[in-house]
Amino acid sequence: EYFSMTSLACSMLNRTNLISNIIFFLFLYCYTFQKMSLKFKNAKRIEGLDGNVWIEFTKLAADPSVVNLGQGLPDIPPPLYVKEELSKIAAIDSLNQYTRGFGHPPLVKALSCLYEKLYQKQIDPNKEILVTVGAYGSLFSAIQGLIDEGDEVIIIVPFYDCYEPMVKMAGATPVYISLRSKPMDGKKWSSSDWTLDPKELASKFNSKTKAIILNTPHNPIGKVYTKEELQLIADLCIKHDTLCISDEVYEWLVYSGNKHLKIATFPGMWERTITIGSAGKTFSVTGWKLGWSIGPYHLIKHLQTVQQNSLYTCATPLQEALAQAFWTDMKRMDDPECYFNSLPKELEVKRDRMAHLLESVGLKPVVPDGGYFIIADVSLLDADLSDMKNSNEPYDYKFVKWMTKNKKLSAIPVSAFCNKETKLQFEKFVRFCFIKKDSTLDAAEEIIKAWSRQKS
Amino acid sequence: EYFSMTSLACSMLNRTNLISNIIFFLFLYCYTFQKMSLKFKNAKRIEGLDGNVWIEFTKLAADPSVVNLGQGLPDIPPPLYVKEELSKIAAIDSLNQYTRGFGHPPLVKALSCLYEKLYQKQIDPNKEILVTVGAYGSLFSAIQGLIDEGDEVIIIVPFYDCYEPMVKMAGATPVYISLRSKPMDGKKWSSSDWTLDPKELASKFNSKTKAIILNTPHNPIGKVYTKEELQLIADLCIKHDTLCISDEVYEWLVYSGNKHLKIATFPGMWERTITIGSAGKTFSVTGWKLGWSIGPYHLIKHLQTVQQNSLYTCATPLQEALAQAFWTDMKRMDDPECYFNSLPKELEVKRDRMAHLLESVGLKPVVPDGGYFIIADVSLLDADLSDMKNSNEPYDYKFVKWMTKNKKLSAIPVSAFCNKETKLQFEKFVRFCFIKKDSTLDAAEEIIKAWSRQKS
Ligand SMILES: Cc1ncc(COP(=O)(O)O)c(C=O)c1O
Ligand SMILES: Cc1ncc(COP(=O)(O)O)c(C=O)c1O
Repeated sequence: EYFSMTSLACSMLNRTNLISNIIFFLFLYCYTFQKMSLKFKNAKRIEGLDGNVWIEFTKLAADPSVVNLGQGLPDIPPPLYVKEELSKIAAIDSLNQYTRGFGHPPLVKALSCLYEKLYQKQIDPNKEILVTVGAYGSLFSAIQGLIDEGDEVIIIVPFYDCYEPMVKMAGATPVYISLRSKPMDGKKWSSSDWTLDPKELASKFNSKTKAIILNTPHNPIGKVYTKEELQLIADLCIKHDTLCISDEVYEWLVYSGNKHLKIATFPGMWERTITIGSAGKTFSVTGWKLGWSIGPYHLIKHLQTVQQNSLYTCATPLQEALAQAFWTDMKRMDDPECYFNSLPKELEVKRDRMAHLLESVGLKPVVPDGGYFIIADVSLLDADLSDMKNSNEPYDYKFVKWMTKNKKLSAIPVSAFCNKETKLQFEKFVRFCFIKKDSTLDAAEEIIKAWSRQKS
Repeated sequence: EYFSMTSLACSMLNRTNLISNIIFFLFLYCYTFQKMSLKFKNAKRIEGLDGNVWIEFTKLAADPSVVNLGQGLPDIPPPLYVKEELSKIAAIDSLNQYTRGFGHPPLVKALSCLYEKLYQKQIDPNKEILVTVGAYGSLFSAIQGLIDEGDEVIIIVPFYDCYEPMVKMAGATPVYISLRSKPMDGKKWSSSDWTLDPKELASKFNSKTKAIILNTPHNPIGKVYTKEELQLIADLCIKHDTLCISDEVYEWLVYSGNKHLKIATFPGMWERTITIGSAGKTFSVTGWKLGWSIGPYHLIKHLQTVQQNSLYTCATPLQEALAQAFWTDMKRMDDPECYFNSLPKELEVKRDRMAHLLESVGLKPVVPDGGYFIIADVSLLDADLSDMKNSNEPYDYKFVKWMTKNKKLSAIPVSAFCNKETKLQFEKFVRFCFIKKDSTLDAAEEIIKAWSRQKS
C-alpha cells in the first residue's frame, strides 16, 4: 500500500510537474508574446491598413506567361527625349545632390509656367506648388497636413484605393458615395452614364466634412466630370466651407468629345482646392514617382510641413529631367507632336480596340472618356469559378484570380476600389489597362477570342 | 446749447458709428480669419513643426560668392560608375516604370547580400528590408509605424534635426539626453570625448519609453560609439523592452583607429532594432534620396504599411542604378579601390586639413572619428556680432549669419541640432562640412586665414 501510494504520488507529482511545466511554458510564451505584441506592435494609426490590392495582384501577374492588363503600368516606351534627358543629367555632378526641399527650382518654374496657362492665373512657383513622391505623395501630404482626427472626408466610390487608408491613417472618417449608372438595356455604355445623385451628394456634407476627394478623369471608370457636375460639387464645397482634393493625374488623357476641367478654376474654389498631378501619368514614366500639388499658399504650406518632416526632398536628377521634358512640350502645346496631344490620340485607338474586343465576346464594357482603363461587366461570361477557394471573396476577386490562372490574362477587380460596404455594387466589374503596346493587346485579343470560341 | 448738444450728439453718433464700424469690420475680419483658420488650418499633428534650419541657412548660402560648408552636400564628384549606371538605365523602358513597392527586387537582393556579411546572419530581402525615400523616409516610416501618441522616445542631443518634429508628429514625447565633454584644458579635442552619462541615460528609460534613436557615426559631432557605449544602450533597451532606431547613414565613413559597430548585432538587439542606411551618404549622391531600413519582419512590416499608405514605391531607375553600384563595390570589398574604403581615406585627409586649419586660427575643433562634419567652438574668435538683429537667437545662429554675410563663409549652427532647452549648451559650436573638393577647401582656408590675420 505504501508503495502504491508513493508510486501514485510520484506519478501525480510527475503529472503535476508535466502540467505545471506546460502551464509555465504556456505562461512564458503568452508573456513573451504579449510583451512582443505590446512593444513590437504597429502604431494605432496604421491598425488594419496593411492590406493592399497591388501587392496581391501584382504577385499573381508576375508569371511571365501572363498577359498583364492589371496594374496601370505603361508598356509602351516613354518618349525618347524624356529618357535622354535623364541620361544626360545623370552625368552632371551637382544634379546628383540635394536640391530645394519643396521642389527643384527649375521644375517648380516649369510647372508654374504650364499651369498659369491652364488656370489663367499667376502661380507662385515657391509657395503655390509642392513637388512630391508621385501623386501618391501629394495625396498623403494633403491629407496628413489638413485632415484631423474626427474630420469627415467624402470619397466617391469606386476610388483609387489609397484614399481610404490615407484618410483613416489621419484618424478621419471616410464618408462614401457611389457613382451609379442607369440601366443601359442594350445601348452602348459610357463612363458618362455613371453619375452622382445630387441629393445624395448634398446629404453627405455636414459641419464635420473637412474635404471631398475628387478624381477626374476617373480611375477606374474613366469618367470625365462635366462642368455641371463640377459646379454641383463646387457649390457644396463653398456652402459647407469644405476643402477639395482634386486628383487629376490623367488630366491630359481625355478622348474626343470631352474636355478636362479643373475645379480649382471655378469661382470660389482656388482658395479651397489642392490639385494633384503626376509625372508618371503625364510622361508615361510611372517609375519616376514624381508628382505635384498646386493650390493657395495657405493650404500648400501645410503640405510643405508634412514633406519637410517625412522625406525632406525629392530626387534631383529626376526633377531636373522632368523640368526639361516639360519645357520641350510646353514649347509646342498646339503641335500634334506635343506629348500632351499625341498620347491621348495614341490611347484613343487602343481604347476603341479594347472596347470592341470586349464587346465582341459578349462583355459589356463601359467605354471611358478619359484615363487608360476600361471596366467591363464580366458576370455575363458565366465563368465556372467553382474550384476557386476563398468563397467569401467578392466575385471579381475570384474571377481575376481564375482568369489569371486559367486564361493567363490578368486584370484588377473593381471592388478593390470600393469600401467594404459597396464592394457588392461593383463586384461584377473588372478593370483592364490599355496603355499597352500592340503586341500586348494582340496577345490579350488572342486569349479572349480563343476563350469565347471555346465557350460557343 | 441745443446746437452744442446736437453737435455733441452728432459727433458722438459719428464716433459711435466709426467705432461700431471698426468693431464690425474687426468682427468680420476675425470671423473670416477664424473660418479660414478653422477649415484651412493645418492638422494638429503638424502644429508648430513648420520651422526648418536647412531652408533658412540654405537660402543664406545661396549667394554664389559664399563658400558653403553648411549643408551636408558633397561637392566632390560621385563615383563615375554610379552616374554611368543611371545614364544607361534611363534608356531602358521597363526601368522607367513602377517596381515592387517595398523595394526594387535587384536592390533588396543587393542590400541583403551586403548586410548579410556585415550582420553575419541571413537577411530576407523581401521581409527584412524596406527601401525608402532617403534615410529620412526610413526614419519617418519607422516612427509613424511604431510610435504611438503618448509614447516617449529618447533622443540624444545634439541630433539630426528631423528626429524631434518626426517624434512630435507621431504624437509622442521626445525625452532628451545630452552628449557631454569633460573639460579639455589644452589637449586635443576628439569626438570620443563626448559621452553619455550612464546614470543619466538609465534615468531616461521608463515604462512609457517606446524607442531610443541612436546615430552612429554621429551628425554633427562625428562620434563613433564604442562597443561599451553600445552595450550600455543595448542593456537598457532589453531591460525596458525598448525599440532602437539606429541611424547609421555614415556607416562607411569612419577614420583610422575607429570601427563602426551595428547595435543590431548585439545579443538580444536584432529583434528590437531598425537600422537605417542612405544611398546619398554611401555613394555621395544625396540627390538620389534612397535609403533603407533593415530589421526583423515583425517591425519592418509596420514600416511597409506606412510606405504603402504614403508613397507606395520609390523611383525605379535610381533603385536599379543603386543596385548595380552596390554589386560593383561588393565584388571588391577588400580592395582599396572599393568606394567603401576609398571614400573614408579621401575624407580623412580633408578632416585633418580642416582640423589643422581651424586650430591654426585659434579655434577649438572637435576632431571627428566618423562622418563628414567637424564642429568647432567659435566663441574664442570673439566676433563682433553687435550689429546682428534678432538678439534673442542663440549665439551660433547669429555667428553663422554674421560669418556668411561678412566673411562669405557659411556653416550650420550646432544649436540647430538641439531642442529648445539644450540650445544654450551648444550655442558656441558651429558645424563645418568637409566633403568638399580641394578648391572649395582652399577658398575656405583663404577666408579663415585672412580673417585671423586681420584680427592679429
Ligand atoms: C487616380 C490616381 N491617383 C494617383 C495615382 C498615383 O500616381 P503616382 O504614381 O504619381 O504616385 C494613380 C496611379 O495609378 C491614380 O490612378
Ligand atoms: C544622421 C542623418 N540621418 C539621416 C539623414 C538623411 O539622409 P537621406 O538624405 O538619405 O534622407 C542625414 C542627412 O544629412 C543625416 O545626417
